[in-house]
Amino acid sequence: MIGTYNKMCLPVSFYVLYMLSVCLGFLCVMFVFLWSGTWRGGFAWNGSFLEFNWHPVLMVTSLVVLYGNAIVLYRVPLTWSRWWCKLTHAGLLFVAMVFAILGVCAAFDFHHTYNIPHLYSLHSWTGISTVALFTLQWFVALGAFLFPWTPLAFKALVKPIHISMGMAIFILGLISSLSGINEKLLLTLRNRSNGSNTEPYTALPAEALFANSLGILVAIFGLVVLKILFNQKWKNPEFEHESNRPLMADAR
Amino acid sequence: MIGTYNKMCLPVSFYVLYMLSVCLGFLCVMFVFLWSGTWRGGFAWNGSFLEFNWHPVLMVTSLVVLYGNAIVLYRVPLTWSRWWCKLTHAGLLFVAMVFAILGVCAAFDFHHTYNIPHLYSLHSWTGISTVALFTLQWFVALGAFLFPWTPLAFKALVKPIHISMGMAIFILGLISSLSGINEKLLLTLRNRSNGSNTEPYTALPAEALFANSLGILVAIFGLVVLKILFNQKWKNPEFEHESNRPLMADAR
Repeated sequence: MIGTYNKMCLPVSFYVLYMLSVCLGFLCVMFVFLWSGTWRGGFAWNGSFLEFNWHPVLMVTSLVVLYGNAIVLYRVPLTWSRWWCKLTHAGLLFVAMVFAILGVCAAFDFHHTYNIPHLYSLHSWTGISTVALFTLQWFVALGAFLFPWTPLAFKALVKPIHISMGMAIFILGLISSLSGINEKLLLTLRNRSNGSNTEPYTALPAEALFANSLGILVAIFGLVVLKILFNQKWKNPEFEHESNRPLMADAR
Repeated sequence: MIGTYNKMCLPVSFYVLYMLSVCLGFLCVMFVFLWSGTWRGGFAWNGSFLEFNWHPVLMVTSLVVLYGNAIVLYRVPLTWSRWWCKLTHAGLLFVAMVFAILGVCAAFDFHHTYNIPHLYSLHSWTGISTVALFTLQWFVALGAFLFPWTPLAFKALVKPIHISMGMAIFILGLISSLSGINEKLLLTLRNRSNGSNTEPYTALPAEALFANSLGILVAIFGLVVLKILFNQKWKNPEFEHESNRPLMADAR
């Protein structure tokens, strides 16, 4: 039922970079879970600061790690069909989109409880734009690439925009994640005289070192994913003209 | 003396994006000058907060606008030689490097005067990494591409690394600029009760709206530059194998 394409001969450098991106993605999720779970006191869903702790975990996991893995999927020379590759890409991005929306809700609930205005910082402006563009992109792509009745001309028109927009959303996700980690540390690690019981950010306590390292890991993960994407030689030639064929064509 | 190549036929979309990048770059410089010069009180070089005001101006101008213009230069189909294009690219990046180093000095001088530790925030970690990588990249490229006695094999080896590293530095520059604007606003626009005479960032005063808009302009400029770079069809075929020829070959 499911067509396959031959494994392409990709150089060792591809596999090294791909394994690096997988390991870095795993490290990013581990670091952000440990930061929220250990230094920030754990998780809840009750509008408290413990609900806010879901925000960095969900945003880094969705906009950076799941998103990054979903967009390099087309480069991995597995012996699966275009149909499965497309569904896995859309599925991973669907999970990422749900996590991202939940992550925004966690921040909004926390603001509501503590009477903090929403969307005032530059981080929140880039962050909400990223999630809005991501949601729009997912639904447009659903209509353009997953419904068999979509005209081929429309698919061909949307494809280059989908690819450019996909990369733009990933880069905006990286910018939002790093400015968000920086913002959280600046707002949380203040002087004890301000009523906080933590060491100030300026003294670089262990939490600051750990969360800064998380930021650096996120940046390196993003650059490795972009490096894989920008290498034209690693493109799968079978997928180059996929927008010209109906989705189910190779599932026959 | 100077060889030329024929003007390539690039589509209207290239010129629209290129003009957009030029206008956005101009707006970024204007906005960051107005922010520091109007809302933050102007400029000085005496270790005070007025010296710090040079920091955002120099970093956005160098790491974002000059850098972005220097890297899209190879796509602009002007009737100039490879030799002039290369020298203009290197020259623009040299000015950008000097501005970036001066920008770092402005921040360090200000920290020194007010006993603020250097390099504690995630913004400062990504920022200093960007400037260090940029400086290293510029000097390696000087040796690899501008000295006529460099072996061709070495040029060919360095070229793909130079291109990837160049894009990585630009993306790191965007991340550093946006997290830096966010950091400056979070640290400056605090409650009046904290001794500040400005409205808090959470109330989104005019300055916050203006500086957040600067951040959005920087992000859009960056995405437009990257969009121009990633379009394979807009590559100049004459420059594809330039590392295989000595620098002066077409200056004869």
